[in-house]
Amino acid sequence: MEEKKVILRDLLLKNPADIAEALSQLSEEQAVELVHRLYLRRAAAETLGEMEPEDSAELLAKLDREEAIKILSRMDPDDAVDLLEELPETVQQELLARLGREEAEVLADLLAYPPDTAGGLMSPEVVALSLNMTAQQAIDLLRRRVEEAETIYYAYAIDGQGILQGVLSLRDITLANPQTQLDNLLQRDAITVSVDTDAEDVAHLFDKYNYFALPVVDDERKLLGVITVDDVIDVIREEATEDIYGMASVPIEERVDTTWFSSLRMRLPWLYVRLATALLAAVVVGVFEETIAKVAALAVLMGVIAGQGGSAGMQTVTIITRGMALGELEPRVGWRLLRKEALLGIVNGILIGATVGVITYLWKGDYWLGVAACLAMLFTLVVAGVTGVVIPLGMRGLGKDPALASGIFLTTLTDVLGFGFLFLLARLFLPEIP
Amino acid sequence: MEEKKVILRDLLLKNPADIAEALSQLSEEQAVELVHRLYLRRAAAETLGEMEPEDSAELLAKLDREEAIKILSRMDPDDAVDLLEELPETVQQELLARLGREEAEVLADLLAYPPDTAGGLMSPEVVALSLNMTAQQAIDLLRRRVEEAETIYYAYAIDGQGILQGVLSLRDITLANPQTQLDNLLQRDAITVSVDTDAEDVAHLFDKYNYFALPVVDDERKLLGVITVDDVIDVIREEATEDIYGMASVPIEERVDTTWFSSLRMRLPWLYVRLATALLAAVVVGVFEETIAKVAALAVLMGVIAGQGGSAGMQTVTIITRGMALGELEPRVGWRLLRKEALLGIVNGILIGATVGVITYLWKGDYWLGVAACLAMLFTLVVAGVTGVVIPLGMRGLGKDPALASGIFLTTLTDVLGFGFLFLLARLFLPEIP
Repeated sequence: MEEKKVILRDLLLKNPADIAEALSQLSEEQAVELVHRLYLRRAAAETLGEMEPEDSAELLAKLDREEAIKILSRMDPDDAVDLLEELPETVQQELLARLGREEAEVLADLLAYPPDTAGGLMSPEVVALSLNMTAQQAIDLLRRRVEEAETIYYAYAIDGQGILQGVLSLRDITLANPQTQLDNLLQRDAITVSVDTDAEDVAHLFDKYNYFALPVVDDERKLLGVITVDDVIDVIREEATEDIYGMASVPIEERVDTTWFSSLRMRLPWLYVRLATALLAAVVVGVFEETIAKVAALAVLMGVIAGQGGSAGMQTVTIITRGMALGELEPRVGWRLLRKEALLGIVNGILIGATVGVITYLWKGDYWLGVAACLAMLFTLVVAGVTGVVIPLGMRGLGKDPALASGIFLTTLTDVLGFGFLFLLARLFLPEIP
Repeated sequence: MEEKKVILRDLLLKNPADIAEALSQLSEEQAVELVHRLYLRRAAAETLGEMEPEDSAELLAKLDREEAIKILSRMDPDDAVDLLEELPETVQQELLARLGREEAEVLADLLAYPPDTAGGLMSPEVVALSLNMTAQQAIDLLRRRVEEAETIYYAYAIDGQGILQGVLSLRDITLANPQTQLDNLLQRDAITVSVDTDAEDVAHLFDKYNYFALPVVDDERKLLGVITVDDVIDVIREEATEDIYGMASVPIEERVDTTWFSSLRMRLPWLYVRLATALLAAVVVGVFEETIAKVAALAVLMGVIAGQGGSAGMQTVTIITRGMALGELEPRVGWRLLRKEALLGIVNGILIGATVGVITYLWKGDYWLGVAACLAMLFTLVVAGVTGVVIPLGMRGLGKDPALASGIFLTTLTDVLGFGFLFLLARLFLPEIP
């Protein structure tokens, strides 16, 4: 008991991000006690804002309801919304109903934007300045707004209708003569983000322009909020996780600390999808069962050929889907890529096909079996290269996420065709097969 | 000719990031002309700083040497170093020799840090302030330093020996009374980055603490430079690309616009590695050639079983390597993960094994063949789960990148063991096999 107190007291002195990290390691009882103590010091809202929304939502649901509402009302609205989105609809509505009306309206507005859009990322707490202020007046106003604003490194000039007129940086305001009119400091050609922009495209904008914050506007250029770069880092990480998981058919929600039963429920459907595709390939093999009974060496070769097709095709799929994710793939390069990958398939196919053909000949002493293996490898690698381009481009064309399912389609295809080529060529060339 | 001029003139008016993007699409001749015009407007350095270092290095090498040196000397040192690193050693040395002595020394110092460490990411152009200044004096000094500093949103207080004493934010300096001593505005418990910290760990620090900039110090806490969040975004993207490429055995340097011959040279070695592992599995199949000749149905089943093992194992490998990359994997959880994945392997194995067993029985009417298929699937999935944990943890223990080669090890193992289990169980259960 004594030891626990010491630990909690030490934690209270740390940076909110460190406290947030520690919170996820504590027992439920300890975590609730720590948040209560943070709450008394008015430090709970910031700490919960640093946690993963799933975790902070779980914790908030366990707190005294009165305390939870006070903490929620002190959180940055963009963090509060992320947390609310993780709660059951009924709890969400109950909390909103008991918040102050103005706060509840701000949060309800933000909840209406899809989480994976600029609207879902932005904070509405932006400093808007009027252009007829002086630099000194702007600094005085920023001083009053510093607590609530998401960032004061950038402020935004709006007109009477709330239409964005340009960006003002704290740097320029600070370094200007105090009597300078803001009008003279305004950057009018500001990069803006439309409120319905996809989160991944927002990330590309930050990546390209290297700003710390970008203003979010609606169709009429009315200023709605601001997105800061720290929110974008989370988007970039999540986007990469999605792509990596998609390639290996891992359910998007799974993390290292997911319980085994949740993991089972989430992974099993994917494994059955894989099983279905494997059975499809097995049907092809089954058709040639008699051929295999006569030349069992074909069973040895079939895995090698289909496997190489899958590996080469996945190289192509990976480069193309990653190029898309990084925004490096221009829409018109499809044909050029198709020619390139077909050429690579031919050259790889000749080299690897010849290797496999020679090995087969040395192993069995059967010249025609070697030729069949070589040609099957060549055909499979050309198909792998071409479909490695066509599948992800086609998925994108259909509006699907190419990283998610391209791999399954591709390996199914390379399996089926790899097996098919080998058996058909063997029938064609080998005299012992009728 | 008239049209080209119009396009170039339009480009000159754009944001440096937009000009940088356009540059990579222009012909060599046009690109050199555009950079020359930017140079005359003193805008070339900033534009080249926005380009990918590979591209800007290629372009710089084609410029008039005198012009190239002037542009280089005007670039931010961290961007200049990234560019220099892409040039051949001789060109690098020639350029450094012709730069001013002070500039050359700064760049040579930075070149000495490995690119994937904090030293390789940082800019040395940091604003250091003395604590006995007032806020107003600090602002006056910042005004003089604004052009060259990497960021003025954070300034750093150092003592006479250059030891970091704390962080000062432009926000606090601006909003304070102009006569306030900086001493009163100092955040003493600043988060710092050690100069030899791995770039990925630097990214984790930014991700965790949500700062825009962090100071870089040596072992004695002497201030060496500053890292800004925009550099970290590049690190996070590259890290994700490496992991995704590693999973699919794609060479790390390849991009969508790599020429076919470079792609061939880079991918072919990986395909031969894959071929070698596939041949290893083929040897196992070859050992059981007579068994297959008697029961050709085994050739149909073997791909299904090894394939499921590979899929399930890759799910585990992916979750663990991604958990490591995101810093979510605590060092002590190894045993817990092993138990979880073994359990998942058993339950998945029973469910999928039963499915495959029943399908096999319905297909061939051979009860014992179904049992052999079911058990082979169960054993393979348990091995896949366990090795899916052991391989990446082992790779990390050996100091290797787990994302890079875990997939190859795992699929080789699941192939070899999946085939082996099936054939051995078939020999055990099936009366027609001697």
